[in-house]
Amino acid sequence: MNKLQLLALAGGLALAAPAFAQQGTKADPAMLAKIKDEGMNRSKVMETAFYLTDVCGPRLANSAGLARANEWTQKQFTTWGLSKATIEPWGTFGRGWDIEKSYVAMTAPYYHTLIGAPKAWTPSTNGPLKKQVIVVKATTEAELDKYKGQLRDKVVLLDVANPPKPSFEADARRYTAEELQKMADFKPESPAATPDAAEMEKRMAQRRTMMALRTKMSDMILSEGAAAILSTRGGSDGTFFTSNGAPYAADAKPVLPELEMAPEDQLRLIRLAEAGIPVEIELETRTRFQTQDLKGYNVVAEIPGTDKKLKSEVVMLGAHIDSWHAATGATDNAAGCAVMMEAVRILKAAGVQPRRTIRVALWGEEEQGLFGSRGYVKNHFADPATMKLLPEHEKLAAYFNLDNGAGKIRGIYAQGNEAAAPIFREWLQPFAELGATTVTLRNTGGTDHLSFDAVGLPGFQFIQDPLDYGTRTHHTNMDTYERLPADDMKQASVVVASFVYQAAMRDAKLPRKTLPAAKPEQRM
Amino acid sequence: MNKLQLLALAGGLALAAPAFAQQGTKADPAMLAKIKDEGMNRSKVMETAFYLTDVCGPRLANSAGLARANEWTQKQFTTWGLSKATIEPWGTFGRGWDIEKSYVAMTAPYYHTLIGAPKAWTPSTNGPLKKQVIVVKATTEAELDKYKGQLRDKVVLLDVANPPKPSFEADARRYTAEELQKMADFKPESPAATPDAAEMEKRMAQRRTMMALRTKMSDMILSEGAAAILSTRGGSDGTFFTSNGAPYAADAKPVLPELEMAPEDQLRLIRLAEAGIPVEIELETRTRFQTQDLKGYNVVAEIPGTDKKLKSEVVMLGAHIDSWHAATGATDNAAGCAVMMEAVRILKAAGVQPRRTIRVALWGEEEQGLFGSRGYVKNHFADPATMKLLPEHEKLAAYFNLDNGAGKIRGIYAQGNEAAAPIFREWLQPFAELGATTVTLRNTGGTDHLSFDAVGLPGFQFIQDPLDYGTRTHHTNMDTYERLPADDMKQASVVVASFVYQAAMRDAKLPRKTLPAAKPEQRM
Repeated sequence: MNKLQLLALAGGLALAAPAFAQQGTKADPAMLAKIKDEGMNRSKVMETAFYLTDVCGPRLANSAGLARANEWTQKQFTTWGLSKATIEPWGTFGRGWDIEKSYVAMTAPYYHTLIGAPKAWTPSTNGPLKKQVIVVKATTEAELDKYKGQLRDKVVLLDVANPPKPSFEADARRYTAEELQKMADFKPESPAATPDAAEMEKRMAQRRTMMALRTKMSDMILSEGAAAILSTRGGSDGTFFTSNGAPYAADAKPVLPELEMAPEDQLRLIRLAEAGIPVEIELETRTRFQTQDLKGYNVVAEIPGTDKKLKSEVVMLGAHIDSWHAATGATDNAAGCAVMMEAVRILKAAGVQPRRTIRVALWGEEEQGLFGSRGYVKNHFADPATMKLLPEHEKLAAYFNLDNGAGKIRGIYAQGNEAAAPIFREWLQPFAELGATTVTLRNTGGTDHLSFDAVGLPGFQFIQDPLDYGTRTHHTNMDTYERLPADDMKQASVVVASFVYQAAMRDAKLPRKTLPAAKPEQRM
Repeated sequence: MNKLQLLALAGGLALAAPAFAQQGTKADPAMLAKIKDEGMNRSKVMETAFYLTDVCGPRLANSAGLARANEWTQKQFTTWGLSKATIEPWGTFGRGWDIEKSYVAMTAPYYHTLIGAPKAWTPSTNGPLKKQVIVVKATTEAELDKYKGQLRDKVVLLDVANPPKPSFEADARRYTAEELQKMADFKPESPAATPDAAEMEKRMAQRRTMMALRTKMSDMILSEGAAAILSTRGGSDGTFFTSNGAPYAADAKPVLPELEMAPEDQLRLIRLAEAGIPVEIELETRTRFQTQDLKGYNVVAEIPGTDKKLKSEVVMLGAHIDSWHAATGATDNAAGCAVMMEAVRILKAAGVQPRRTIRVALWGEEEQGLFGSRGYVKNHFADPATMKLLPEHEKLAAYFNLDNGAGKIRGIYAQGNEAAAPIFREWLQPFAELGATTVTLRNTGGTDHLSFDAVGLPGFQFIQDPLDYGTRTHHTNMDTYERLPADDMKQASVVVASFVYQAAMRDAKLPRKTLPAAKPEQRM
């Protein structure tokens, strides 16, 4: 940014200043300009992202990679001058698991290396195996029974639900103005577009039947003495998706070695086997379980508040640092972590003196059920099962989350909080030129702001351009550093830093929705 | 196809019949309808494609896979009732080469399996290696010299020219009506849109410099005692491209083991190494050279002509059956072979009694320089170096080629043959509803019709929808069966069968261009 642009920005913010004053804030337009200047011109977000992805590696829940990342981020926060950088346990998770070797190839009818990775928490093959394959396809228990007596010592091939084909749609996209307008126009009181109850129940029943069949299939494949399983969750072009993994609990029942495969490779094996051509697989996985420490952790650090009355209050920002294991979890969610880390680095570098304390959190074990943030919320604020509020509950001004890939911020989900929406609209004003314009009252789910929302705390997730998150990177072996566009990451860092600053400088905490009732079924 | 559609088609062809008569042909509209019916309703093109890809496997020049494919196709032609199915040598190629094992992983700073394949004709590692890496980047000889003394026992990482990033364009596309019209409007006499001579010479000089540097780099990496090379030709998402391979000549000088890698994996290694983080690679390749038989082969088979005067004349159709080695060469060019094989199967099944002999050829060693077809043309028709015509030269009515992926046929390149264009326009008339409409006078290159064109024989390549040939499958590890849309393959088979039938039934051979002058530099 050059000086003229800085002046123009300061001018734009000056126009908005009376609005801040009306609302009761000590946010300084010059500080907002400094935040933008630091974030756009001296960004370290890609360097941070490189360390989180390439250097720390895959960061599966309670893995060695996640431990490396926790240690590195704690150290990095301290290096940047944050206070109280801590690796804080949130509760008991389960076993750690890392891959030490993974090799799979077809050795007959001819040699071909296959693309795949061990499914999380599956055991080793205990050395290399060379086995014949058998295809198992069943949609009913009767169909499954037909395989009895045929699986011993075989590598079982499970079916591919969605075979790849030439793609006439781009992997990546950005939100259009029309889509953003539709989000902005959303009214919570609008009749919800939910499917009718009967249809829902039918689908749930189908799902239960399918899950029961899958469990029976797994049990049978194990008890019949198969050697290993090759399965496919989806993907194309050498990209494959990973699924939810085998059980990670310390007392989980045994499962077979299983690899999740690129669909093209899996389909070749299946076509050959179904044509009656003998297919031989060579396979070796070596996985390491860690049972010494079953706890899960979050990493937290602070920029202390400076206002005597308000410094006991906290503005939080966070993102989950754990990932799946077949890549380096770049868009899910090193991107969110790098942006949140960069936001607090920017604030420190800009010399912010926040009225409230700013606390950044990098959550563990999100992928298995938002465990890190839910544990943290339960330990610090309230258990949604009882809704007995802890003293810190009244001190949280806001929580901001980022976990929808590496796309730039286009706005924010106000999560049904109608009183917060106009505040966010004001805070977004300086960022229209950077593409962030939209406040929607819509709820969005699937990530850690829900843990706060569940106990009546104002937790929000930003709207991000989808890019290729849904099609290519989310839970795949191709969720790598290449998928992080530097310009998007910088923009997001500046928007987040600005929101956090605003929330820390405002006279009042962000408005809250009505406290929810206790939900005993949400006990952790 | 139902009966009504058959009647409609017969009607359409009947309207066109007077045109055929004017031109002098005994082509029967009812036979054309039978060809279409057989090809659309009892197609075996996907079964053939399955055998060529999955069952035979990769079909690198003079590999075991190519030998399997030659044997299978010869047998298949005989099964379908073709005559004289022969595996015919075309001359000397060089060594055979197959992969027996390929494994590469990063073992430090943490474990990660890498996606890659041995570069064609590279040697084995002779067992597993565990080595440190070094990045070699040089654009001048002086830069290259800096690495002297540093490469011993290292795995050398070469740079990635085009890092992958989120893609906002679809992999696959079809030609638009506008694009086809532009091809149809092309006039050979139009001023050619070639870059100016100075610019051309500049580019050629740059290319020569780059090639010289690459050779020097390879020689230095070898002589300095490096252990192996990891390089990248391009690609994304787990797809990687393969390049031209190491020398295949029986007396080729030695090279190092080298793997061509998925760019995402290669870039991770490079970023880590350049950040000063020790990277260790585990690597094992086992490749098998075959030097007993250095000859190259084509597979040919015939449907004999039935007209006393014309049966000594030949209509040929063909496609190359060899492929690169990292996948099963589905779109390059099992697709073309499957379509050409299906075209002759359709003609046999439809009970065609062609006036001329129809001969199908599956060319070997196209990827290294159209060797199979050039050898065949030299052995049967003429050597472009001398242009001394052999007796068969005057007997060839036409040659039709298919080698631009699996997309349906949209028309044909008349290859500057202005007299042939109106004939093709007539032959395409019944296929407008199937999307094949366009005759262009443009030349197209890069494949086996050029071998015929080079000696003044009428050789033609069809226009095909590009699909994802250029972006995803051509020379990649993802050129697999999934990339073959059955509807496109069926359409192409029917169009080709129809063209071949027309060429076999016409009174005259297809018109020819003026004979070219001898080109001594084209000696094989």
